[in-house]
Amino acid sequence: MADLGQQILEMGKKARAAARILALCNKDQKNAALMAMADAIEAAESDIIAANAKDLEAAPGYGLNAAAVDRLRLDSARIGAMAKGVREVVALPDPCGEVIREWTRPNGMKITKLRVPIGVVGIIYESRPNVTADAAVLCVKSGNACILRGGKEAIHSNAAIAKALSVGAVNAGLSADVIQLVPFTDRDGVRLLAEMDRYLDVIVPRGGHALIEAVVEHARMPVIKHYHGVCHVYVDKAADLAMAEKIAVNAKCQRPGVCNAMETLLVHRDVAEKFLPSAAKALREKGVELRGDKRTCEVLGAEVKAATEEDWTTEYLDLILSIRVVDSLQEAIDHIEHYGSHHSDSIVTMDEAAARQFLAAVDSAAVFWNVSTRFSDGGEFGFGAEIGISTDKLHARGPMGLEELTTYKYLVTGAGQVRG
Amino acid sequence: MADLGQQILEMGKKARAAARILALCNKDQKNAALMAMADAIEAAESDIIAANAKDLEAAPGYGLNAAAVDRLRLDSARIGAMAKGVREVVALPDPCGEVIREWTRPNGMKITKLRVPIGVVGIIYESRPNVTADAAVLCVKSGNACILRGGKEAIHSNAAIAKALSVGAVNAGLSADVIQLVPFTDRDGVRLLAEMDRYLDVIVPRGGHALIEAVVEHARMPVIKHYHGVCHVYVDKAADLAMAEKIAVNAKCQRPGVCNAMETLLVHRDVAEKFLPSAAKALREKGVELRGDKRTCEVLGAEVKAATEEDWTTEYLDLILSIRVVDSLQEAIDHIEHYGSHHSDSIVTMDEAAARQFLAAVDSAAVFWNVSTRFSDGGEFGFGAEIGISTDKLHARGPMGLEELTTYKYLVTGAGQVRG
Repeated sequence: MADLGQQILEMGKKARAAARILALCNKDQKNAALMAMADAIEAAESDIIAANAKDLEAAPGYGLNAAAVDRLRLDSARIGAMAKGVREVVALPDPCGEVIREWTRPNGMKITKLRVPIGVVGIIYESRPNVTADAAVLCVKSGNACILRGGKEAIHSNAAIAKALSVGAVNAGLSADVIQLVPFTDRDGVRLLAEMDRYLDVIVPRGGHALIEAVVEHARMPVIKHYHGVCHVYVDKAADLAMAEKIAVNAKCQRPGVCNAMETLLVHRDVAEKFLPSAAKALREKGVELRGDKRTCEVLGAEVKAATEEDWTTEYLDLILSIRVVDSLQEAIDHIEHYGSHHSDSIVTMDEAAARQFLAAVDSAAVFWNVSTRFSDGGEFGFGAEIGISTDKLHARGPMGLEELTTYKYLVTGAGQVRG
Repeated sequence: MADLGQQILEMGKKARAAARILALCNKDQKNAALMAMADAIEAAESDIIAANAKDLEAAPGYGLNAAAVDRLRLDSARIGAMAKGVREVVALPDPCGEVIREWTRPNGMKITKLRVPIGVVGIIYESRPNVTADAAVLCVKSGNACILRGGKEAIHSNAAIAKALSVGAVNAGLSADVIQLVPFTDRDGVRLLAEMDRYLDVIVPRGGHALIEAVVEHARMPVIKHYHGVCHVYVDKAADLAMAEKIAVNAKCQRPGVCNAMETLLVHRDVAEKFLPSAAKALREKGVELRGDKRTCEVLGAEVKAATEEDWTTEYLDLILSIRVVDSLQEAIDHIEHYGSHHSDSIVTMDEAAARQFLAAVDSAAVFWNVSTRFSDGGEFGFGAEIGISTDKLHARGPMGLEELTTYKYLVTGAGQVRG
């Protein structure tokens, strides 16, 4: 335990030293490092596949199902895609060095609010091993050193990928320590990272509830949570019902296992009888199980189960949908504020006043008007790549791209100004 | 204990409800509320003075010295100044509603990144009772409800001021709950606030180390710390030494008890023999006690005590200064990074290349070139008023004004876009 603590602390010190140098690198130096990292991933293909084989062998012991094992599996094509993903980040603009604002004060001193790297970023994740490469290169591109802590199911694969990335960094003249992977997966490691505010400037947990809760409980530095999405589509009385059906089906079915998929459909009572039978039919044809409130059940009859109170706060991540009929736009807004997760919510309506009211009053990271919630995504927003979708309000909200991996500082220049 | 918890939770619920309505108020409605609050403070003058008398009576029991008692004391003039301060915030621009960025994606959906209030802001402070009014009106101006928790020494004064502010809010048609003061000062109250992430979106502790530590230990929401400042002035070998002396004296002496005052002076060895005797004389004439490293002691002789390792990390907040002679610009930067608090640091030099290196490499909220560190201040930056000076890197860094009391959300509008 003291040992783990010492190891984490050493990693932190190394990361801070690497970050100080990386922060002074220009765009070309960082891009050269990314290219070298992509090359190193390809060069390490056989090592990565061999490491991955160990994880695949251990997978049954962790109780992984077939789908999870498939997500874990790395082959030549997937490793190639990983390297390609790294090279795509090269093409993105460098967020650092941007002058966010610049002004001169009456006393002549000039103030520049400059975008700079955060420093050392901790990323804790449970997902597929390619996250190791995706997250690390976004950190390096934005001038940050990173400490990664992946899940036990992928520990060998993650270590092989992180090693290749460090080799790439060194080949490009950077420190290997710009990317470090915690070499053990004890839950204590999460706590130790979360407590190390001296060397870790921010911590980003991506994963299940227990993991995020462990980080929040212990963290002394800012946490950018990637929590669940209980996303809503509200079909207003002034909706184009064909558009509403298309959006509802897309938001639920296009990829039900992700955080920006719709979990609850709200329908204004004036259009419920017209909208629900057709929409329900389309959803059921896609295999969606429906759970409705009393009025939904009255309209749809045996097609729909009765929803419980718990349904309104549940992120199914599956082909299940809760449906509620509301009396008014305000009731829809109140439902979303009460039961929602402030992630991504959409109104479908042709009434601009209703839309404006919804956009203003719904306190979510992304609020949509006549658009599927599935567009709440860094790629779809044009950010090029994303760390994930933050469910926090500060410092990053919603899709978290390169810019959200930066902060700012003030440069103040003058000619001997003193305060009177 | 369960009782305190229940009370805090009720305050949180009320604050959330008030915040939802306040977020939809326009600039004129918020400004009308501020004017009504200023009027209400003036109307409550005798109540506030009577409450203050109770605090003054209790002050000896808390061991307050004469200076602290003076800071606590409210009279007609100070209450008038408090009301005037509230009215001055009316004139500041409303940060909310600003379009931070707007763009259209290839699929036709338009994305607007809009500045919006954070929601409910918790402010924990120990200082003078006028902070109650100052902090509360900045929150309301930026569309946030606030929960305030002041120190026990000013509890009666704070309660009377908060009551007046709530009366003003109600007079202007807002909820009294936009401003709430925790009516007890148990340390448990700090913990309970810090744990209430459901209703409190951010918590801002201003005060001593123990208070901030109590918040950091328990907080589940973002914390914006207002910590100490170990600020440096580095006199480069290419400095205008007259300018350097003027800046050093100003940074140390103009107001030594504040966080942006200089605590350590770094001097390049090439100018130490010329600069130090004159600067030391000027500083000593202002009553400054000097503590130097070996080389400083060699130059200044008996005028200076030997500094210990502890001196380099100490925020004196007093007429004491540590001085160190360095071999190079890089050594100055390394000293600041190792011992400093990343608050405000200044280089004095006529060499632009040296200045640019310092500005880039020093990882502090505000980095100055030929300017006194005392300008690290919301008022001096032109922000009009400030909550304080954040020593965190995220979400607010350095002077924290109205804009730092906001966040953003994405509004996405379209014509039925679905994801393929």
